[in-house]
Amino acid sequence: MSTTTFEVLEEHKAFGGRLVRFKHLSEACGHMVAYVYVPPREAGCPALYVLGGLTASDANCATKLATAQQAAAQHGVVLVFPDTSPREGPDDEHPLLGRGASYYVDATREPWSSHYGMFSYVTDELPRLIEATFHTSGRSICGHSMGGHGALVAFLRKSNLYASCSAFAPVSNPSAIPPPAPAWRAFSAYLGGGTVDDSPDAPWREIWRSYDACELIKAYDGRPLQILVDQGAADPKIHVLGARRLVDAAKLNDKVTLEYREQAGYDHDLATFVATFVADHVAYHASRHQK
Amino acid sequence: MSTTTFEVLEEHKAFGGRLVRFKHLSEACGHMVAYVYVPPREAGCPALYVLGGLTASDANCATKLATAQQAAAQHGVVLVFPDTSPREGPDDEHPLLGRGASYYVDATREPWSSHYGMFSYVTDELPRLIEATFHTSGRSICGHSMGGHGALVAFLRKSNLYASCSAFAPVSNPSAIPPPAPAWRAFSAYLGGGTVDDSPDAPWREIWRSYDACELIKAYDGRPLQILVDQGAADPKIHVLGARRLVDAAKLNDKVTLEYREQAGYDHDLATFVATFVADHVAYHASRHQK
Repeated sequence: MSTTTFEVLEEHKAFGGRLVRFKHLSEACGHMVAYVYVPPREAGCPALYVLGGLTASDANCATKLATAQQAAAQHGVVLVFPDTSPREGPDDEHPLLGRGASYYVDATREPWSSHYGMFSYVTDELPRLIEATFHTSGRSICGHSMGGHGALVAFLRKSNLYASCSAFAPVSNPSAIPPPAPAWRAFSAYLGGGTVDDSPDAPWREIWRSYDACELIKAYDGRPLQILVDQGAADPKIHVLGARRLVDAAKLNDKVTLEYREQAGYDHDLATFVATFVADHVAYHASRHQK
Repeated sequence: MSTTTFEVLEEHKAFGGRLVRFKHLSEACGHMVAYVYVPPREAGCPALYVLGGLTASDANCATKLATAQQAAAQHGVVLVFPDTSPREGPDDEHPLLGRGASYYVDATREPWSSHYGMFSYVTDELPRLIEATFHTSGRSICGHSMGGHGALVAFLRKSNLYASCSAFAPVSNPSAIPPPAPAWRAFSAYLGGGTVDDSPDAPWREIWRSYDACELIKAYDGRPLQILVDQGAADPKIHVLGARRLVDAAKLNDKVTLEYREQAGYDHDLATFVATFVADHVAYHASRHQK
């Protein structure tokens, strides 16, 4: 039982509420840490899961996004900052693979498959722990870059679990943007496949598409969904991220409404680009929980 | 000429303005870096100098205080985040001395005296560079912990240079709070003296008092001054910081009006305590420049 291993590592009062870091033993991922911001109105708040980007962690997302906490205090939202990967076990010491680089998939290939179960962790195991511990009511999800990808994939695959989804500069079409895109190397390691010349029907492509926001938007066939995306127009990674492809994909499926905002002059930086617009996103998610 | 060595290291759009990191060659301190936040209304804004605490840097102050940038954008204030010490030369590798631990003094003892000229740097050399480069008009100063000490000392010694001063959990009475207070060891290394049993008239005590906010408040004899101080009531360092002593000192001098706010539940943390109240401070300083 993961909840029995729950241990608070630190707690600070912030914006009238509290920022808590805890560790726990996850069935999917081993020993994990996370930050949670609890607003002054503690019980019954919706939880917004905030997924970090490549090389990020629970800690830098929590400390660089003070504006998110300020907005969460105002709107009565709990913020959950999971770590971006397990921190134990196999690691090939490549900065774009392993620690800080989970891409929020459930890995199927050794050595990663033993405990790189981040999709299950973020969409199922962690929310159950959060709801039991912090008494949240309702879920929304957002993320930055690799974490924007994680948020979109979670929402599109498990839309019944979430009231809303947004993303900042998300990795948007990883199964179709070939190397040297870092997602390609990670998908290949975690899920197998990745030979660019393989047939369009190669079995690995099906698995990859199940973690690809553009493909999931095209294939989506449930209740009508809305998605908010902010992308910096001056982001040097704009083409490899492929966020503009989300616009094209959403045009093909009238069940998915995408609000795509390209923000003039902004780059890819967490502490400036995301910090600037994250309060908007917190307000957006809060409004989606008000009936 | 320090301005000729000015070089921008990075720049990010943030809150409609821009966050710039630059390096330059300082006469007082050698090679130095700093962050500057420039609000959307670029020219003619007052500059608020934000001095960091022990072990901090220009970078963690800038990235953890997004709420300060948000407020500075709103109020039209330039924020200057100097580094907390020189980063070259002597360093005894003690984490509470040398790098990240300047205490914003002009060191008089070798090996520090060669380039630990942080008081001159922060109050004179850097402001001249900022005004020439970013076209700011008017100065205010604030800081956290060791940086709160630096801000108070700068304001009380050079009140004609500043429109206003505030501090978060400042080191307040370093010449009277003996070891193991970290400031005592640093003052001893940088300024000489420090033998606790020495006479009250020992020459070193005079120099130490010139860097002691409580002593400077008692001795102050210029135009009427106001100071704003926030102190976390749950700060585990509250007694060694000595901020309550500022209240007693200000009672002895009717030329200094202190607004001292002890914030229930808050600790000493930059990313939570300071981040929560820094927007208030930015608004306070902005108001002091409006005639």
